[in-house]
Amino acid sequence: MLALLALSLLTVSAQQQLWGGANGSPRVNSDNTVTFSIKAPDAQRVSVQLDYGVLWPLERDTAGVWTFTTGALEPDLYLYNYVVDGVKTLDPENVYTMRDVATVKSMFFVNGGHPLVYEAQDVPHGNVSAVWYDSPRVGQKRRMMVYTPAGYDQGKQRYPVFYLLHGSGGDETVWLHQGHAAQVLDNLIASGQAVPMIVVMPNGNVDEQAAPGADQRGLVTPTFAHKQWMEGSFESSFVDIMEYVDRHYRTDKRQSRRAIAGLSMGGYHSLYISANQPKDFGYVGLFSAAIRPMKGVESPIYDNLEQKLAVQFGQDLKLYWMAIGKDDFLYEPNRLYRELLDRGGHRYTYVESTGGHEWRNWRRYLAQFVPLLFK
Amino acid sequence: MLALLALSLLTVSAQQQLWGGANGSPRVNSDNTVTFSIKAPDAQRVSVQLDYGVLWPLERDTAGVWTFTTGALEPDLYLYNYVVDGVKTLDPENVYTMRDVATVKSMFFVNGGHPLVYEAQDVPHGNVSAVWYDSPRVGQKRRMMVYTPAGYDQGKQRYPVFYLLHGSGGDETVWLHQGHAAQVLDNLIASGQAVPMIVVMPNGNVDEQAAPGADQRGLVTPTFAHKQWMEGSFESSFVDIMEYVDRHYRTDKRQSRRAIAGLSMGGYHSLYISANQPKDFGYVGLFSAAIRPMKGVESPIYDNLEQKLAVQFGQDLKLYWMAIGKDDFLYEPNRLYRELLDRGGHRYTYVESTGGHEWRNWRRYLAQFVPLLFK
Repeated sequence: MLALLALSLLTVSAQQQLWGGANGSPRVNSDNTVTFSIKAPDAQRVSVQLDYGVLWPLERDTAGVWTFTTGALEPDLYLYNYVVDGVKTLDPENVYTMRDVATVKSMFFVNGGHPLVYEAQDVPHGNVSAVWYDSPRVGQKRRMMVYTPAGYDQGKQRYPVFYLLHGSGGDETVWLHQGHAAQVLDNLIASGQAVPMIVVMPNGNVDEQAAPGADQRGLVTPTFAHKQWMEGSFESSFVDIMEYVDRHYRTDKRQSRRAIAGLSMGGYHSLYISANQPKDFGYVGLFSAAIRPMKGVESPIYDNLEQKLAVQFGQDLKLYWMAIGKDDFLYEPNRLYRELLDRGGHRYTYVESTGGHEWRNWRRYLAQFVPLLFK
Repeated sequence: MLALLALSLLTVSAQQQLWGGANGSPRVNSDNTVTFSIKAPDAQRVSVQLDYGVLWPLERDTAGVWTFTTGALEPDLYLYNYVVDGVKTLDPENVYTMRDVATVKSMFFVNGGHPLVYEAQDVPHGNVSAVWYDSPRVGQKRRMMVYTPAGYDQGKQRYPVFYLLHGSGGDETVWLHQGHAAQVLDNLIASGQAVPMIVVMPNGNVDEQAAPGADQRGLVTPTFAHKQWMEGSFESSFVDIMEYVDRHYRTDKRQSRRAIAGLSMGGYHSLYISANQPKDFGYVGLFSAAIRPMKGVESPIYDNLEQKLAVQFGQDLKLYWMAIGKDDFLYEPNRLYRELLDRGGHRYTYVESTGGHEWRNWRRYLAQFVPLLFK
């Protein structure tokens, strides 16, 4: 048996060699610079791209290992890929990857010695479930992800519920992988910055049951384009989700204990769901939200917005929170929407950040918004 | 807004171009051949590797697109990667990836027009939860994955429980991603081949709380080597898992309604857990199991195996199922173990397959074993 196990370990080591040496890439240095390295003796040109930024050329040493060290990076979660002789590749030495719609990138953290709120830490962890529910208003079984906080399975208490919606190109899983929502909630709750809550992450594309690969469409390429897209049917069927959640979890159904927020298309969904269900949500968050229906879209969901807002803001609305980056392509519609809210005399909180329509911002908005809820 | 959405779509299209053209790779042809293609005009040499097989060179056309078409492949789940000028890469056009210990590969199905049992189909789906439980016998909170069958959330019935264990190099998530266990269960239950059951997938490495990245160790590289490895502490703490499951799920606790199985190290765990708890499991499955403790390991868990087996096989054991591939490096210890069982006069089922110590076999064994349970 010992010999056989040794054989097994040999196999492992051979497999790992297939994927390059043991250079340890990326290496986050103590000064927050990051060193990328890749063994590629036969390559002509190798560069690295951080997020969707410029290509940085790596330099080759005599052993065929290419390296590049960045300047000091701000503490954050970063995605990257190499380009080897014109072909985009993951880092063969880094198994941590993240899907962004139809692309896959390698990832790492720079934390400057202090764990980020996005990182798994030594704190009590909530459970995360992939849950299939019936949506009669859509006419199909659909999947959502549900986070229940640490301790949920031990007590009998009822919890507030936060509905957290994705953007176009996303699905029910994206707040968990790109947004690291479970880690954010775990860490904020453990530190006392946020109250324990249930977080429900539905799929906002009514023409699919679940994320690509998880339903019978098979291994389709994820896309921004959907047959039914921002035309009201997600909003009008949202009550199916709420009914399921209230039936299957120990929820507190009061308005003051329910929140809804989303990014981009999910912000648009949050805006119209909360406007059409003015008694249901005490907290609303619009992260880089799309605001106006597309040309030609007609649905009672989108009619009479100003009247609906007058009712919504007259109810027991605790917080209406908007955030957007200065460089976001949705900045102008958001500015116009703030003007509309101002004209109506509606009180809201507005956060303007740097950056554009990007996950770096949405992760930050989530970590800013969650501590404001249910207090 | 329309202009802004158009801008958004432009961004998408630019992003996707970054990742190559729209060649659609891999393309599974109607004759079960598969065409791989990758745009790499600046590359000198491109090859493709199916699973851990040989490298097949691709041919370049004048536009810089490299292609290769395989012979007809047997219907199955396949992993692959390209090698571009010596660097292993994923397929930039395929977002479906799978981690195998410390490597990431692209994946696809060949199904010959009939969905595989591993594929998500149009059937009722069970829920899958990442569940943190307290393990006082290990002294930490640990994570397991729990599959509850479709309908679990609607009724009051009690369900049999199948404990499904991973091998060394694996963790609580691997039966779900490499094994496609949720799809296998969904499909076998929907077709009536298997009875509805709860499937519990714990983490068998007692020196970690959860899969790499999900606990406070951060983004460590997954490995076969563990500080505490096959020395008895997983087996002796297993009752923590069973107690949690019986307390939090509607389980049927009878021996005839409990199964345990695992692959490689998980088969070893299943062997010794069931031998030490002879009244607990009606069904035992050893998939390419490790059999004997490593040299120097001492634990009462591993003592007096033959006496323990005599007790276990004297209890209400319904099925003792062993499977291994002809080329598995653990074939000989399994043969010796069958001799030991034969000497004891113990009845078991033995399945000998082609192939070696590999996921292709473990997926098949799972799909063969599950229909035998709880009948």
